[in-house]
Amino acid sequence: MRVTYEHVQAAAARIAGGVARTPCVESVPLSRLTGCRVFCKLDHLQRTGSFKERGALNALLQLDDEQKRRGVTAASAGNHALGLAYHGQRLSVPVTVVMPRFAPLIKVRTCRQLGAEVVLEGQSFDDARALADRFAAERGLTYVHGYDDPTIIAGQGTIAVEIAEQVDAFDAVVVPVGGGGLIAGVAAALAKLEPAAQVIGVEPATMACFDEALKAGRPVDVEPHPTLADGLAITRVGANAFETARPAVERIVTADEDALALAVLRMAELEKSVVEGAAAAPLAALCGGQLDELHGKTIVLVVAGGNIDPAVLGHVIEKGLVADGRLCRFRAIISDRPGGLAALTKTIAEAGASVEQVVHDRPFTSGDIAHVCVDVTVETHDHAHMQQLRHALEAVGIRVVRD
Amino acid sequence: MRVTYEHVQAAAARIAGGVARTPCVESVPLSRLTGCRVFCKLDHLQRTGSFKERGALNALLQLDDEQKRRGVTAASAGNHALGLAYHGQRLSVPVTVVMPRFAPLIKVRTCRQLGAEVVLEGQSFDDARALADRFAAERGLTYVHGYDDPTIIAGQGTIAVEIAEQVDAFDAVVVPVGGGGLIAGVAAALAKLEPAAQVIGVEPATMACFDEALKAGRPVDVEPHPTLADGLAITRVGANAFETARPAVERIVTADEDALALAVLRMAELEKSVVEGAAAAPLAALCGGQLDELHGKTIVLVVAGGNIDPAVLGHVIEKGLVADGRLCRFRAIISDRPGGLAALTKTIAEAGASVEQVVHDRPFTSGDIAHVCVDVTVETHDHAHMQQLRHALEAVGIRVVRD
Repeated sequence: MRVTYEHVQAAAARIAGGVARTPCVESVPLSRLTGCRVFCKLDHLQRTGSFKERGALNALLQLDDEQKRRGVTAASAGNHALGLAYHGQRLSVPVTVVMPRFAPLIKVRTCRQLGAEVVLEGQSFDDARALADRFAAERGLTYVHGYDDPTIIAGQGTIAVEIAEQVDAFDAVVVPVGGGGLIAGVAAALAKLEPAAQVIGVEPATMACFDEALKAGRPVDVEPHPTLADGLAITRVGANAFETARPAVERIVTADEDALALAVLRMAELEKSVVEGAAAAPLAALCGGQLDELHGKTIVLVVAGGNIDPAVLGHVIEKGLVADGRLCRFRAIISDRPGGLAALTKTIAEAGASVEQVVHDRPFTSGDIAHVCVDVTVETHDHAHMQQLRHALEAVGIRVVRD
Repeated sequence: MRVTYEHVQAAAARIAGGVARTPCVESVPLSRLTGCRVFCKLDHLQRTGSFKERGALNALLQLDDEQKRRGVTAASAGNHALGLAYHGQRLSVPVTVVMPRFAPLIKVRTCRQLGAEVVLEGQSFDDARALADRFAAERGLTYVHGYDDPTIIAGQGTIAVEIAEQVDAFDAVVVPVGGGGLIAGVAAALAKLEPAAQVIGVEPATMACFDEALKAGRPVDVEPHPTLADGLAITRVGANAFETARPAVERIVTADEDALALAVLRMAELEKSVVEGAAAAPLAALCGGQLDELHGKTIVLVVAGGNIDPAVLGHVIEKGLVADGRLCRFRAIISDRPGGLAALTKTIAEAGASVEQVVHDRPFTSGDIAHVCVDVTVETHDHAHMQQLRHALEAVGIRVVRD
């Protein structure tokens, strides 16, 4: 079925007070970075760290008493499960969620802390779905689909109702797309509230199921692939989501893994926000040059969620620093006589770079007995700084053979 | 001079529109963690990433035309400089800032991007201050003191005006303390707006200059020490700040470096916010047990700034993961025959831990020729998981000699 503005409006009234009204703030640094006037809708500040609460609460509030008593189940890579767990606990509805084994630890753990029964099953969302369906059949639980249930789509659309109230005039909203529930809800709401605003979706390049559905004219399966945007790793867009979103969506673009990682870093550094890969997709597309037609316009980026494992965040920051030229590794050929390493580290210090790691592995790195190779990792300001360091090393007779 | 509510009120009217009104959100995860009802005032979402804009704009707006034309100068470890640079550029007031050499790169770089002249000078704030004073004298610039100018104190107090509007009833506000400008402004505002609310300050344990001033009855010098809370590394509380804050401040507590690092991680993981060390100080004190009398109360944590170098954030996350038992290093004694390392890694994998690094350095690690020591870094769920892994390794004959 096609979800309409009226469904979204009803959902907004239903969930008011139960779900936080999140800030939508103008970002000066992101505006400078992208050449657009950028607002960020900070739904990663929801109590369970993502927009998924909106749909989850809207769905739970429409259960009848018997359904509430028996409880609900869902397959979810994480955020939908968290939304159900949190509001299920608030409303005393038992929640059983099935997550695929790749679900981030932070989502699994928090779900359990919120009192949900969490079962880990299979390598894909489909495996998890099959088990959740069995729970529904055997235990009489209500299955709440994470992105295709019309009550879920209407609930997610409430984010756009808030955006329309919070931002005076905007030209486009850029939304991450997994199974399509969020973009469908946003499209349904804005078709009425801001019909001139473009609704643009961003998918991971490795799993662009909405784009494939557009090409085929109907939802089709795509191959599962690992992506930093784990929340968008869906193999087939929802039928109701597709029917609702398709007529209203301006375009769908993709973001590759490097762009996603760099966008997570940019959100941390410039917007001071910890976001998961999925939530960084809109900025990744914008910085990747896929949305250059928005230059100079006022746009809203939907920051969908912040549930990223700290260890992954740490790795992404390092990867981003490498891409920025702020963490560099090079191999230098130094004298094997005493003082060779001292000359190298002195030159690095004088260039204002900071040594992170030195690997000095004599037997494996050189054929020339008077010299030795050293692998050095340094913190630098940018690529130009690394070039200066390279020249400074060469000026004192240290050859840099790789960087 | 003592700054009063009337000064703060005038500042609030003066800077309205120029400085963002930041969100103040209830945090369910932090409330669960601390046993208080926690609200976070998110001033790290200010356009330059900290509350310092409030005072900077208030000061700039009170310059006369000649002062505006000549420009201003300041010594600052970073955030005050950023606030002056941003609003100076907006108001066409030239800004020259002197930063100590330890100032985080992110603050230096952003200041320059905002059009300020940035000079790096000396190893301490005092060195930077001396040079800025010389600029003021030689070039006719107005010196804007970062924490003791009454216009600055009044400006910082506007954060409390917003808190009083945003949170219905609160028992305490917990504020980071460096030179005392912020806590003085907050105390002045709340003395009128919420006289029953406690104002509590948190200083780094290594540089507790407000606490020392309380003991001495007047501002006194403390030794400079490096701290993760670089924004609080001030050797002497401001005289006006001290005079204003002292009668209204309930108590001052300290946070040590480990607690600061862990609080930065908690803010990232639970509050999805990138905060600098200074801004994590209130949570650090709360989690460190210094504020147990607030249990069950409604408290507001002032999240003062988010300007932390991403590389430092990466290191802090790793340090926090180690403290949490989610990143562990141990030394194992394995067989030196083929298959020894395979048995080790198979057991780790079966225990559900993930290998991060293996250092297998034969000549230096063992006297016994049939065995070899291996240093292993693994990602685990928590300390208990590491214990399970240790038992699993010992069950297959691998001795763990250190963890």
